Amino acid sequence: MPKPLPIQILPIGHIPEIRPGDNLPRILLAAAKKSKLSFQQNDILVLAQKIISKSENRMIDLTTITPSQRAIDLAAASDNDRSRKDPRLVELILRESRRVVRDHPVLIVETHHGFICANAGVDQSNILGENIVSLLPQNPDASAKKIAQALLKLTRKKIAVIISDTFGRPWRLGLINVAIGCYGIPPLVDLRGTRDTHGKPLHATIIATADELAAAAGLAMPKSASTPAVLIRNFAYKSSTEPATKIIRPAPDDLFR
Amino acid sequence: MPKPLPIQILPIGHIPEIRPGDNLPRILLAAAKKSKLSFQQNDILVLAQKIISKSENRMIDLTTITPSQRAIDLAAASDNDRSRKDPRLVELILRESRRVVRDHPVLIVETHHGFICANAGVDQSNILGENIVSLLPQNPDASAKKIAQALLKLTRKKIAVIISDTFGRPWRLGLINVAIGCYGIPPLVDLRGTRDTHGKPLHATIIATADELAAAAGLAMPKSASTPAVLIRNFAYKSSTEPATKIIRPAPDDLFR
Repeated sequence: MPKPLPIQILPIGHIPEIRPGDNLPRILLAAAKKSKLSFQQNDILVLAQKIISKSENRMIDLTTITPSQRAIDLAAASDNDRSRKDPRLVELILRESRRVVRDHPVLIVETHHGFICANAGVDQSNILGENIVSLLPQNPDASAKKIAQALLKLTRKKIAVIISDTFGRPWRLGLINVAIGCYGIPPLVDLRGTRDTHGKPLHATIIATADELAAAAGLAMPKSASTPAVLIRNFAYKSSTEPATKIIRPAPDDLFR
Repeated sequence: MPKPLPIQILPIGHIPEIRPGDNLPRILLAAAKKSKLSFQQNDILVLAQKIISKSENRMIDLTTITPSQRAIDLAAASDNDRSRKDPRLVELILRESRRVVRDHPVLIVETHHGFICANAGVDQSNILGENIVSLLPQNPDASAKKIAQALLKLTRKKIAVIISDTFGRPWRLGLINVAIGCYGIPPLVDLRGTRDTHGKPLHATIIATADELAAAAGLAMPKSASTPAVLIRNFAYKSSTEPATKIIRPAPDDLFR
């Protein structure tokens, strides 16, 4: 068996500020070219949620938002040194949520997609404008598919696409990048039925491959730098059309809801 | 600024079955050589927990374990199609735990280290012998330090070491590799006080860098293959002696205990 090539994590530089309506696939191709990178067959393109939200105009001006009484109450309750909340921001978070999971001291919600995360992914960083915040894409799997299909057309290469965001975790400090949308790559790889190195069957071993890919890309996506797009090369995978929402643990199985 | 080299994920092949008392650093160097890899200054070596546990003789023969009544009861309670539990295994899990967090249908515990995970990391896969199970290393940070120091002596290169295990997550299906021990690399990178691309201060942005590195290495560590050691190259980091236990969220801050 030939030695597999090392997996590479290649940040795409030269990505300009993204505006609503921008053609992301064309911008990414131009940026890759400027970075002396070319897309290769089976590359995995990991895109930070923020540029998707910008291109899809999921930006909201807080001055246009009138908070409900519930938002005002929640903002007051979550008020502390670490995260003083603007009631208008809380209002947006509630609108993006189907359920509040914890409301103090951090607002943990279940988004309309089903993701459980802080603040429904509503975020103020890396955005131009004092009162502008970004919402998560409405359907990140559909966004990933659209970009993968456009790249196939433009490059004739099959490129898998993952849309990532940084999520916190219970029990562990710090954020890590996870997949909130994907196309072309299996979100989960089920090893049940396969055997370990000693021939014992592997039980209950489903690997969250798309999340590990997102985390790997995160290594090349420091928050403070303009690298919202990363190529992962030489990772072997089977093509898939399963959405990243498959990663969401079904409610009846979830011990921590 | 020169273009940074792409981050590479390099699995080390040719690692033999590890036995108690084995000199892991020497074995890793020999295996790397056979894989035509050499350790470079500032490489990050990610090691699957299993080989550490084997070398430190954290292997237990279940036939030597007499389960307590509590273990027998918990085994009966957690009995289902997905994970039929051996009361002796449950006994070991209880001995490795300071607290049971959930007992049905999966045993989620807080280990003596403070990690919250399924089955206290007690595991039967990738181990020779019908009734042999492995426990997590007693002090994975100390194990990582010992290996890093031995590698420094042997190679005169500063190599950071991460010990990884696959953990499940609330809310999201599938396992991902996380850091349970580290030396030489910061477990968390605190970006608070830095500014985003638009000059806004970044709030509450602590990245779990060691976990992202472990997840990235996981891409080159499929469970069924003998690749328990992976080098990550060209990832820029500041040297650190902070332990991976720093990633454990302090109890008063934890909303999901």
